[in-house]
Amino acid sequence: MRWVRYRHGEAVGFGVLEDDTITPVEGSPFGEHRPLSRRIARSDVRLLPPVIPPTFYAAGLNYLGHTKEMVDALGASARRPAKPDIGYRAINALIGDGDSIVVPSDSSGRVQYEPELVVVIGRQAKHLSEEDALSCIFGYTIGNDVSERSWQAADKTLWRAKNTDTFKPMGPWIETDVDLESLTTRVRLNSTVVAEFRTNDMVFGVARYISAMTRYLTLYPGDVIWMGADSPTRDMVPGDEIEVEIDGIGVLRNRVIAEPVRG
Amino acid sequence: MRWVRYRHGEAVGFGVLEDDTITPVEGSPFGEHRPLSRRIARSDVRLLPPVIPPTFYAAGLNYLGHTKEMVDALGASARRPAKPDIGYRAINALIGDGDSIVVPSDSSGRVQYEPELVVVIGRQAKHLSEEDALSCIFGYTIGNDVSERSWQAADKTLWRAKNTDTFKPMGPWIETDVDLESLTTRVRLNSTVVAEFRTNDMVFGVARYISAMTRYLTLYPGDVIWMGADSPTRDMVPGDEIEVEIDGIGVLRNRVIAEPVRG
Repeated sequence: MRWVRYRHGEAVGFGVLEDDTITPVEGSPFGEHRPLSRRIARSDVRLLPPVIPPTFYAAGLNYLGHTKEMVDALGASARRPAKPDIGYRAINALIGDGDSIVVPSDSSGRVQYEPELVVVIGRQAKHLSEEDALSCIFGYTIGNDVSERSWQAADKTLWRAKNTDTFKPMGPWIETDVDLESLTTRVRLNSTVVAEFRTNDMVFGVARYISAMTRYLTLYPGDVIWMGADSPTRDMVPGDEIEVEIDGIGVLRNRVIAEPVRG
Repeated sequence: MRWVRYRHGEAVGFGVLEDDTITPVEGSPFGEHRPLSRRIARSDVRLLPPVIPPTFYAAGLNYLGHTKEMVDALGASARRPAKPDIGYRAINALIGDGDSIVVPSDSSGRVQYEPELVVVIGRQAKHLSEEDALSCIFGYTIGNDVSERSWQAADKTLWRAKNTDTFKPMGPWIETDVDLESLTTRVRLNSTVVAEFRTNDMVFGVARYISAMTRYLTLYPGDVIWMGADSPTRDMVPGDEIEVEIDGIGVLRNRVIAEPVRG
């Protein structure tokens, strides 16, 4: 089942997408809800990030190829992780499928994509074993962990490198029926495939992360965990179109634009 | 004016506290609201964190005394910051005034307090100059950035060192009438004063942080920015009572307990 969050005129709501038709629901997929009788054409709505998470988690280096690439680019601070230490991103940066990634005027231009599987939590959970860990998952979506490498190297935290407004495209929807082992992630830059990798070839898998995290923290419905990206990444420039596809989930498509001049 | 968020029976709501009486409001202080005609005694409610922020920002080392202490304790990674690079905390860790800080059973015991001024944002804001930066502030509250130093030194991120459930007491309320220059922060551990410093003696002040942040990111109503702590910090053990007081705002009081044994 595909859950969308959308804006239709002035209204924002959740719905279920089938073919090109949305069945709006009253309520949210994370609580009580019921389908409404009307239907909306997908072409009549703007898709929004499919959830605004209470907490926005992100695994850092979680694929061996990307880890090596970051060690080469950023130096010794990017070592292969020894254990699943989760990180964070910020919701101000979220945009949906079809929205534009805006590059600030003082960026060095080293703005790169990172294609990521996103886990969406469905129920409150703590102290989950690895065996039980996947039971708290509602579904999966796609994220593009857009990163400005000059700021990533220069700043003490990832605040502007990864959390500048519009740097976190997420969507297009949440797919609830996913077989992790069958997934392939593919990136297209201006329609050319520039990366392709088995989505589940992670250093620490989804179950391992959730089990480790819930030893200390409570996950809540709507929380998201971005699972990291494999290499290679490349610079994107204004005018580029970047697509992240995960077979069985969908395609997240965004255009890159320059920050408008402020008058 | 003092804004509280509270649980009264099964109901959770916002209200205005005057002396020991709460005037409940319909709505929230960050949107439309109107006072209700009934009154509730403060003693009849449980205070909650006064806001659940969309994004939970935290300055790292932002006082010279604490910076020196952390350099001594953690090594060169704790340098005096060269610019205001903001960090993040997670809402799973928030508790209110009077709630218990729970120390996980596998902690080394190096669980320490960090008394912090908390800025609460009142309106959507981007591209604020330092001169205009304070105009987006709704009010101020108090935070205790509880930190497990062994995990802080060992982990790649601050996830469990600072974001373990219950590690972020915040409250008791939001005070809207504050003169930053007049504030003094004071910490009492089991009623003994263990720290006292001028709250506004920061490396980078509130206006500087907000101006720098909003160059790249949008602040939203309810966002909080924890402004960092001055030294010294000490270990807390189960049974301890920790109080963070900021003159003109209030007192945030929490007890430390050990994690219950799981059966």
